[in-house]
Amino acid sequence: MNSPLTVAPTQDANALLESVFDVRVYYEDTDAGGVVFYANYLKFFERARTEMFRKLGVVQSTLAQSTGCIFVVRSLDMDYRRPARLDDLLTIHTRITKIGAASLDFAQTATCHGELLSSGTIKVCAIDAKLFKPTELPNAVRAQLKASQE
Amino acid sequence: MNSPLTVAPTQDANALLESVFDVRVYYEDTDAGGVVFYANYLKFFERARTEMFRKLGVVQSTLAQSTGCIFVVRSLDMDYRRPARLDDLLTIHTRITKIGAASLDFAQTATCHGELLSSGTIKVCAIDAKLFKPTELPNAVRAQLKASQE
Amino acid sequence: MNSPLTVAPTQDANALLESVFDVRVYYEDTDAGGVVFYANYLKFFERARTEMFRKLGVVQSTLAQSTGCIFVVRSLDMDYRRPARLDDLLTIHTRITKIGAASLDFAQTATCHGELLSSGTIKVCAIDAKLFKPTELPNAVRAQLKASQE
Amino acid sequence: MNSPLTVAPTQDANALLESVFDVRVYYEDTDAGGVVFYANYLKFFERARTEMFRKLGVVQSTLAQSTGCIFVVRSLDMDYRRPARLDDLLTIHTRITKIGAASLDFAQTATCHGELLSSGTIKVCAIDAKLFKPTELPNAVRAQLKASQE
Repeated sequence: MNSPLTVAPTQDANALLESVFDVRVYYEDTDAGGVVFYANYLKFFERARTEMFRKLGVVQSTLAQSTGCIFVVRSLDMDYRRPARLDDLLTIHTRITKIGAASLDFAQTATCHGELLSSGTIKVCAIDAKLFKPTELPNAVRAQLKASQE
Repeated sequence: MNSPLTVAPTQDANALLESVFDVRVYYEDTDAGGVVFYANYLKFFERARTEMFRKLGVVQSTLAQSTGCIFVVRSLDMDYRRPARLDDLLTIHTRITKIGAASLDFAQTATCHGELLSSGTIKVCAIDAKLFKPTELPNAVRAQLKASQE
Repeated sequence: MNSPLTVAPTQDANALLESVFDVRVYYEDTDAGGVVFYANYLKFFERARTEMFRKLGVVQSTLAQSTGCIFVVRSLDMDYRRPARLDDLLTIHTRITKIGAASLDFAQTATCHGELLSSGTIKVCAIDAKLFKPTELPNAVRAQLKASQE
Repeated sequence: MNSPLTVAPTQDANALLESVFDVRVYYEDTDAGGVVFYANYLKFFERARTEMFRKLGVVQSTLAQSTGCIFVVRSLDMDYRRPARLDDLLTIHTRITKIGAASLDFAQTATCHGELLSSGTIKVCAIDAKLFKPTELPNAVRAQLKASQE
């Protein structure tokens, strides 16, 4: 999707890398309450992390083939403030707040017309896809994250 | 789910095998129109086919490991008559209408309180999971389908 | 999403209106077979129809509020030829092939790198959202469809 | 679904009400990593809370019609320990840990063969469905929760 995704180092000491990604709300995302179903924000956030990786030069399917490493979510917390509705255009802000030996911490928000709808922090771990065991961040990923900070 | 799934040969010349499976409608299944989102009937039908296989002794994940064969949908048509809503308890009727060399044809319906909500016919093919190429129905599957007709 | 969606009258006598919409495949779209789950093409096709409406000036949530009319799928058929995988960028082609009194017929395809993955025809009906009964296409929609053909 | 859902007061001072609900993992729940997609545990947990409400005599669609009140998730945290795979039969344990004036706190876990896969705490608020503003727990709900503790 040619959405206006940008990745930039930030001046915030806690924010290493940042990106912005737009998501349109379709029927599939809503529920009978007339709003976006709470689990679907995790889909939006995953898309935004994936596009952030892509901008950084990391395509997860390619990474899996070349290194056997995939990323999985280890833990998260979410806060839901306001509902999103059909046809809303959401902006997902994504920041990497910590680069660990085998994990990445993300802070993400969904906003609409500048209003905060929901926010979350997500810890993602690198694992060996076959063993499903933690593994170090691939060097290629670490190098690309580093390069993006300079 | 301990739903009252039954598999039985039928007198209908076109129906070789038949099963019944119940599905509860949850928030995740509905959309902002207040009804079940049209794509989600394909989820319900897939669950029902999977449980029919299970009753016949075919567990798809086990089959994939032992034979490298998985089932994929080749084509389908769907007819939507009445909407399902939150908390409705749907009954999915599933019939195998044709056993081919490398495929199975299913006829499925979703009803609620005896009223027809939607119906479909689905052609499922056996494929080699690695090559993603058509393959003959595994002998174990064919034998179990045959045994169930007797 | 700023995807390259275009809507144009076509020379094909059967195709009145046409649009193109891009969809990226994310983890949420795939299943344990390593490919896009068959029901999810219906999500992609619904997004593409929604964006086609939007380009034509029809925003469904606004239409529902102003006229009480929503669109629901009445019937469809799908053909699955090749699988889509994680990170694939799909192109959804959408054509309106018939404008009825209370319905619209669509022909849609999903392609990747020019190869056909799946295709379908979908009949969408206008209904009164409260009564869930068929209703005529709102004049605004009919006028906008007409204007787009000229 | 006739799954073995039970609701019982517990001896745990922090647990007021408890229920158990089984969920089968289908293709729709998994992703290309071969495991259940992380957002889908929120679907499983929502189903389990809904069935717990149902056992307590609270049907959410009926409650919405009679009182205008619906439940929405206000916040949550999730911890993912082990993956679930296709065909796994998960057990979802649900406890109400706090009954507030306008909210309920839940602690939920997903286990398979006795092993913990994931756990979460979820705060659910009662809101007026039209205004989308917090409202007190309906008396009927409060009474039924109370009765279940005795």
